[in-house]
Amino acid sequence: MTYCLAVRVNSGLVFASDSRTNAGVDHVSTYTKMHSFAWPGNRFFTLLSAGNLATTQAVVKRLRADCEHEDAPNLCSVRDIDAAASYVGMVSTEVQRHQSQRDTMSTNFEATFIFGGQIQGGRPGIFLIYPQGNYIHESPDLPFLQIGETKYGKPILDRVIRPDTPLELAGRCALVSLNSTIRSNLTVGPPLELLMYRADAFDEGHRLSMTESDPFYRSLSDAWSEGLKRALNSLPAFDWESSIHTAQVVQGTPRK
Amino acid sequence: MTYCLAVRVNSGLVFASDSRTNAGVDHVSTYTKMHSFAWPGNRFFTLLSAGNLATTQAVVKRLRADCEHEDAPNLCSVRDIDAAASYVGMVSTEVQRHQSQRDTMSTNFEATFIFGGQIQGGRPGIFLIYPQGNYIHESPDLPFLQIGETKYGKPILDRVIRPDTPLELAGRCALVSLNSTIRSNLTVGPPLELLMYRADAFDEGHRLSMTESDPFYRSLSDAWSEGLKRALNSLPAFDWESSIHTAQVVQGTPRK
Repeated sequence: MTYCLAVRVNSGLVFASDSRTNAGVDHVSTYTKMHSFAWPGNRFFTLLSAGNLATTQAVVKRLRADCEHEDAPNLCSVRDIDAAASYVGMVSTEVQRHQSQRDTMSTNFEATFIFGGQIQGGRPGIFLIYPQGNYIHESPDLPFLQIGETKYGKPILDRVIRPDTPLELAGRCALVSLNSTIRSNLTVGPPLELLMYRADAFDEGHRLSMTESDPFYRSLSDAWSEGLKRALNSLPAFDWESSIHTAQVVQGTPRK
Repeated sequence: MTYCLAVRVNSGLVFASDSRTNAGVDHVSTYTKMHSFAWPGNRFFTLLSAGNLATTQAVVKRLRADCEHEDAPNLCSVRDIDAAASYVGMVSTEVQRHQSQRDTMSTNFEATFIFGGQIQGGRPGIFLIYPQGNYIHESPDLPFLQIGETKYGKPILDRVIRPDTPLELAGRCALVSLNSTIRSNLTVGPPLELLMYRADAFDEGHRLSMTESDPFYRSLSDAWSEGLKRALNSLPAFDWESSIHTAQVVQGTPRK
């Protein structure tokens, strides 16, 4: 499984992904699911992938090759972010079709992507590209998109993310969403990757890759656990509880 | 869909459930999914149900009728909590088999239950009873059980619930788990029901039913949102952030 998400806030874009791939529980590997394409000063894109690993790797290779060979359309030449999303969807369906032609046992070659970025003259945008190549974009009412194992990490996004959420806060929220998912589902695992792109920067953004022993990730994870305990301890008491009783609070280290 | 959970801590048991039933998105109703059976001073049980509503209603009627008619086995006469869980599993499979005999269109009559309680002389226990009638019990490593739409509300349980968690704190944690699920999934809805049974009390426990406008539920929900915002605002800053930048925190009312 996989968990990737992207957030669009007024001040920019956040992309986050785990790195665990598995073909059955006894075939687990680590691959990045975050692929960036930057032409500084002009355009910046990031692709997050879920699904068949051979498909997603082939799609990324094809996106890079189309630019190198100047085959049109390509990510360097598309006019706007919607055309870029359409192009990625087209490449994805072509790759899937090509792979399934050689299939002998009804393998699932499907892949789902989150794609986003910004091209000079246009606004930043994020898109969820379905295996069929069609896509949806984010909106002010739904400023984030998720693929893969989306449910564990959704409540914190539902509560916090709005268009006016500051970029770095949205980044920390994305890490918390990933952290919660990793704790609850074995098929989502580190390293965690996080990319924050400030609107109109047309640079490569800030990109971090964190294992579970990374000092920043540990301090974030610990601070979040502590904050949750404080939040739980601040909840109102039931009417039959004495004040002594409610002084019993969450203590000790959390369960791993 | 449905979301029900039960927790066993050293000091007792917590049961919590939503009340939304749906047969398709245009056929939504409200039914309690929490059924209690108490013989004060001797034994106490609670059943939480997910799945086919006709099946779960028939199971509850049969459990009550077996006691009234003194048909053995029944909840009044079983010797211990494991025998009670076996009996509930047997009733569930019998009801499903009976219903499917009259079926003309491969309807899904399956139901899943959480069952728990305590009988004089034994320990309190909780069980997840599968549609096949077999079951698992909780353990010190997994002191909670969930049925239905379980993922949204699992991270908070994973982080907080341990055998030594105080009973009322486990109750508040169960409400938070339900609250997060209701916010993220339309098919889980109020009223929320909560029952807390103190170990060795052999009474009916404290039972609450809360709509979204219930003052206690509102104050709990608001306090949780505030606590989460404080927790997010207390997370460590990225190394490129200035101290001024990190002063930008979550503000305003959360998205509904």
